Amino acid sequence: MPLELEKKQNADRTIGRGQTMIIDKGLGQHGFSDLMETAGDYISCVKIGFGTAPLYPTELLLGKIELAKRHGLLIMPGGTMLETAVSQKLVPEFFETICRLGFNGVEVSDGTIELSRKLRSELIREGLKHGLQVVTEYGKKISGSTVDVAELQATADADWYAGAEMITIEARESGIGVGLFDANGNCEEEALKAVERSFGGISRIMWETPLKQQQALLLRTFGPDVHLGNIPPQDALSLETMRRGLRSDTFSFGKQIEIPFHYMI
Amino acid sequence: MPLELEKKQNADRTIGRGQTMIIDKGLGQHGFSDLMETAGDYISCVKIGFGTAPLYPTELLLGKIELAKRHGLLIMPGGTMLETAVSQKLVPEFFETICRLGFNGVEVSDGTIELSRKLRSELIREGLKHGLQVVTEYGKKISGSTVDVAELQATADADWYAGAEMITIEARESGIGVGLFDANGNCEEEALKAVERSFGGISRIMWETPLKQQQALLLRTFGPDVHLGNIPPQDALSLETMRRGLRSDTFSFGKQIEIPFHYMI
Amino acid sequence: MPLELEKKQNADRTIGRGQTMIIDKGLGQHGFSDLMETAGDYISCVKIGFGTAPLYPTELLLGKIELAKRHGLLIMPGGTMLETAVSQKLVPEFFETICRLGFNGVEVSDGTIELSRKLRSELIREGLKHGLQVVTEYGKKISGSTVDVAELQATADADWYAGAEMITIEARESGIGVGLFDANGNCEEEALKAVERSFGGISRIMWETPLKQQQALLLRTFGPDVHLGNIPPQDALSLETMRRGLRSDTFSFGKQIEIPFHYMI
Repeated sequence: MPLELEKKQNADRTIGRGQTMIIDKGLGQHGFSDLMETAGDYISCVKIGFGTAPLYPTELLLGKIELAKRHGLLIMPGGTMLETAVSQKLVPEFFETICRLGFNGVEVSDGTIELSRKLRSELIREGLKHGLQVVTEYGKKISGSTVDVAELQATADADWYAGAEMITIEARESGIGVGLFDANGNCEEEALKAVERSFGGISRIMWETPLKQQQALLLRTFGPDVHLGNIPPQDALSLETMRRGLRSDTFSFGKQIEIPFHYMI
Repeated sequence: MPLELEKKQNADRTIGRGQTMIIDKGLGQHGFSDLMETAGDYISCVKIGFGTAPLYPTELLLGKIELAKRHGLLIMPGGTMLETAVSQKLVPEFFETICRLGFNGVEVSDGTIELSRKLRSELIREGLKHGLQVVTEYGKKISGSTVDVAELQATADADWYAGAEMITIEARESGIGVGLFDANGNCEEEALKAVERSFGGISRIMWETPLKQQQALLLRTFGPDVHLGNIPPQDALSLETMRRGLRSDTFSFGKQIEIPFHYMI
Repeated sequence: MPLELEKKQNADRTIGRGQTMIIDKGLGQHGFSDLMETAGDYISCVKIGFGTAPLYPTELLLGKIELAKRHGLLIMPGGTMLETAVSQKLVPEFFETICRLGFNGVEVSDGTIELSRKLRSELIREGLKHGLQVVTEYGKKISGSTVDVAELQATADADWYAGAEMITIEARESGIGVGLFDANGNCEEEALKAVERSFGGISRIMWETPLKQQQALLLRTFGPDVHLGNIPPQDALSLETMRRGLRSDTFSFGKQIEIPFHYMI
């Protein structure tokens, strides 16, 4: 499938519904095939988490990338890979490698290393130049870091200006003590509402919500079309039930959105 | 396999040993096949959790239902599906659909919506009329809800009178803060013992115990043949080791029940 | 593959890098195949956890054992199986059975039963006599048990003298409240450092670290080549990223060890 067509499909996918990004920490071919078959229609992006990509047998990795693209998905390595490349001065080799492997997206982050806003924008443009969709990440992986709304706004503006598609709000894989979530995995609602007011919309912000309670909270706060990321593969279908009001946590959604009984009959 | 024969096998399965009900939140064909192959002999029922059923590609769902029945299991959609049908006045369509798909069981619950005892009994009889085995659920999904023993007794009596096979005690998927378990996932043992005394037997009560510590507690309290539900697929075999005293938590069971060394040699 | 060659490969595998032992609580053939394909090169040992081994269909168990050995791995039943055999006076039958099934390793533990040091050494020698590699375990599964450094030293000395390859430090599957970890899963660092000082090396000690935070702590304390055990299958690849500094938790390792970009290009 030509890249332009793929990108168009991805773009269509973003209109009018919430996007879901899966974090894949090491699925094999059967597990990945199961994910695509059960939830491929409900997710928009797969992230091959942190630095796992180079550890796969190459054939297996190529097969996963190919299968994800056949489902019209964005697939990208975790931001830690690019951060590693930056810290080792191997950025050109990084982009060449991921394009050769067939990735159609890249995550630009500074969760672990320091990155000036100028270099961050250059990396975004470098991704675009290679034909990749660019997702950026806001926030540090350090325990205790919380969202600074003004800084988030400035970062997002610069990222979007440079050409980023989406900015994700860091929450780490464990979902605890970083970003909007305190040490118990609960949300700092005031900060969240401030961000909401600040941007006046949610269409280009994705919240990393690895834990179910976080997903439910964001869905109840922003509605069924909020973009949610770092979703564990085994929760992909459950999250979609919550988007559609087919699980107790968001049952009240049920009246507003499409119900599947008609399809079933 | 004709339905009558299936039902007979399911009935035999209930005699003399603890039943295990798995909650499936989105297994694909490889994952479901693995579950059936490893633990199909140790489980009695698969619940296609909450509202996931209609989100599968139809062929995949049909294949899972068929495979479960070939293993002699009960397979039913989560109670949230019927609650959705009730709230949308689509109950006849619901029963027609799940029968057409091949489900041989149905869960009648009011975890999210309100249901009069009369309507609850009607739904049970409607399930029976369609040739389905009926499992009911007692309890709300609201945080802080705990078991009211007198009400549980009255509900169970009415459900059994209407024809339900089994009543399950709600504990939610997370196992925290609902039913017999407090906010830390610990059991309110006094309430549990009251229920035990009240019914004088456990043969038609199933405890939802998604967490291992809950499973171990119920096994130590009621013995290896207690019925346990909402077990995550990946814990099916572990739970069976606990039933047989082949894990540290219940090692003392080992002397009373069948040991597998003889088979192994 | 002849046993001698296998054992040589396993021995080579131990030189110069940290070993990883996976605990398998019930993987089916697709899941196990995925584990071998994605992470077979990064793990050294698979433990068929506690008493799950005899619950598999025999053909499936034989297939898993064969596949693990084809990847040059050690594969052994969980220590609870041998403890069951001891308590039932079926030790000869146990060794005969596991050899017939093709296991090439055995775990000698007393996590649940009491075992004199003499009997423990006899069991180790019995394993060697049957051509098995022997891994022992130190520590009780009882909540609140913590490491007694002097006793650990004496036990390890006796186990090694009897012929054990490795001694693992018990932490239970949940990782909480046993061994070096307190009720919150945090490490008692003082005890840990005492053990480190006591042995002056880590090459024949394996730490059971089922939780990611434990793995990261041990890696930061002892370095990337510490031996870690009881790793859940789905975390095998993530752990390898932490060993290589390809995840935020141990990113500082990145400068010291092999980076995979060159392979990727």
